[in-house]
Amino acid sequence: MRVLCLAGGVGGAKLADGLAQVLAPGDLTVVVNTGDDLERHGLAIWPDHDTVLYTLAGMADPSQGWGIAGETYTVSAQLDRLGEETWFRLGDRDIGTHIFRTERLRRGARPTEVALELARSLGVRSRILPMSDRPVRTRVRTAGGWLDFQDYFVRLRQEPEVLEVRFDGAVDAAATPEVLDAIRSADAIVVGPSNPIVSIGPILAVPGLLAEIVAARHRGVASIGVSGIVGGKALRGPADRMMASLGEEPDSFGVARRYASAGLLDVFVLDLADADLAGDVSGLGLQVVVTDTVMMDERSRARLAREMLAASRAGGARGGSAEVGPEVGEESAQS
Amino acid sequence: MRVLCLAGGVGGAKLADGLAQVLAPGDLTVVVNTGDDLERHGLAIWPDHDTVLYTLAGMADPSQGWGIAGETYTVSAQLDRLGEETWFRLGDRDIGTHIFRTERLRRGARPTEVALELARSLGVRSRILPMSDRPVRTRVRTAGGWLDFQDYFVRLRQEPEVLEVRFDGAVDAAATPEVLDAIRSADAIVVGPSNPIVSIGPILAVPGLLAEIVAARHRGVASIGVSGIVGGKALRGPADRMMASLGEEPDSFGVARRYASAGLLDVFVLDLADADLAGDVSGLGLQVVVTDTVMMDERSRARLAREMLAASRAGGARGGSAEVGPEVGEESAQS
Repeated sequence: MRVLCLAGGVGGAKLADGLAQVLAPGDLTVVVNTGDDLERHGLAIWPDHDTVLYTLAGMADPSQGWGIAGETYTVSAQLDRLGEETWFRLGDRDIGTHIFRTERLRRGARPTEVALELARSLGVRSRILPMSDRPVRTRVRTAGGWLDFQDYFVRLRQEPEVLEVRFDGAVDAAATPEVLDAIRSADAIVVGPSNPIVSIGPILAVPGLLAEIVAARHRGVASIGVSGIVGGKALRGPADRMMASLGEEPDSFGVARRYASAGLLDVFVLDLADADLAGDVSGLGLQVVVTDTVMMDERSRARLAREMLAASRAGGARGGSAEVGPEVGEESAQS
Repeated sequence: MRVLCLAGGVGGAKLADGLAQVLAPGDLTVVVNTGDDLERHGLAIWPDHDTVLYTLAGMADPSQGWGIAGETYTVSAQLDRLGEETWFRLGDRDIGTHIFRTERLRRGARPTEVALELARSLGVRSRILPMSDRPVRTRVRTAGGWLDFQDYFVRLRQEPEVLEVRFDGAVDAAATPEVLDAIRSADAIVVGPSNPIVSIGPILAVPGLLAEIVAARHRGVASIGVSGIVGGKALRGPADRMMASLGEEPDSFGVARRYASAGLLDVFVLDLADADLAGDVSGLGLQVVVTDTVMMDERSRARLAREMLAASRAGGARGGSAEVGPEVGEESAQS
């Protein structure tokens, strides 16, 4: 069963890891947000891609969810000593990845090619594809003006209220042949519990990409999404506050409405904590699954992945109205 | 007393450190060989410059003479894992320097500007100047053909016999305003115990540089050099074998003859082990000083520097024929 997963950083990476655990090797393709990408110290840094890469490679720091386990910060200390601003803190092994990538890009490789090389070198059997080979840069408007995304996200710790979001370069970007192929050959499409605005949003803004997903849905391929906002609070990051300041419902319903109005989904997964929203989400024309969506460990990643795939099989028939019940706990997940 | 020192890597760095110890802060300018510079993994690497920089900053690894004390190799391990060739082994802190430099150069800074910034950031009061802002690349011909210098020096461990040496780019290089100023304002010129062919050679190949030194000598500024080949053996590296395979005497006399025929020197320092060559070196028209030239520790660096400065003061008067006797041991050096 070939699965395409749309992902931002930590949450999407966890679900991708769950999918990789339950699928046959090579059956997973993850399309990652590149709107967060940046250049620091002359190095090409792809935060969301690398979070997915390190997670699937089993290298991720288990406590913080991003970065590499046991990372050291020697290079960063030297850069600091040389007067560089090091608020975007980079670990040593991570810098090895950035150096490799920057040099490959400089020599003319496409980002997609570099991503495939990185995954291969780190023993990852899944494909991790940048959403586009052309640069897209997420920017947010705050009371202080427009900011680069990482300026807002890392340097200012997501403290300012976001009044507007844009994806610079998106209109000139294009879905890559690899991404289009992956959508066309997918048996199911899974949207990770990533920030709907600044993680999934940029992916959907790449011309041609959403249209290809919609076309797949029309062929009967089920598209299933899950909210990263649970009980009105984002599991991680500023998604809830961002939704509110942009005038959307800062809860699972708001996420579902976003995706439904884009034509992205057939099925939406609500957390048990949001079971009361099931009726409202159904009213958007989405099938609803209610289950435990919080991935606390590797087993819960696999369980959620398994339930989402089961739901997508059950609910994939276009126009089908089956509401898949919650599967809670390991036993039922094994079924 | 303002001193200009020409230097390659380890030997030149040690003497530069001795000079920095005995001179007033800011009175030393070191002009470093850039012929060994290379790009690895997209990073601009300046081996000789950095050896001098780290030595003067008190950061150098005392056992190997190059690199940074207590260095780690985490980035290199990651690059290795990603399939990069890592025979040119780079430490983590060192990579911080390279990342900083590469980015500054990419943004348009001259190499000289970057060198001055690096020294300032690391608390070095001396000026360390690249011999030229334009790239010069040393290449050596072996039985297997022409090789990039570091290919020969590091990857092949200086094993092949060197049949010919060239400095690509030298004809288009130019002495920088900073180097020319330093020569013009120098009260003494000191040539370090570096490889005469591939460390001092490239410096002298920069159009205008040697001519400026010769002009300084004509104004009465003494130029004093020391051999890195002692007792017929290079203290470090392949200078002896290189001299032999290029048809020159593989000893201190060969070094002296090279420098004398270029018009570089007034005074030449022979090691005690080479005292028997004093007459031959005098025959080249050079004043001779015989002393212990092997710098085993920081004190011996300062001692040799002090003796060379004393000899340059004594022997600087152009046409002067005073032969400065050896000063051996700490006591006499303190005088």
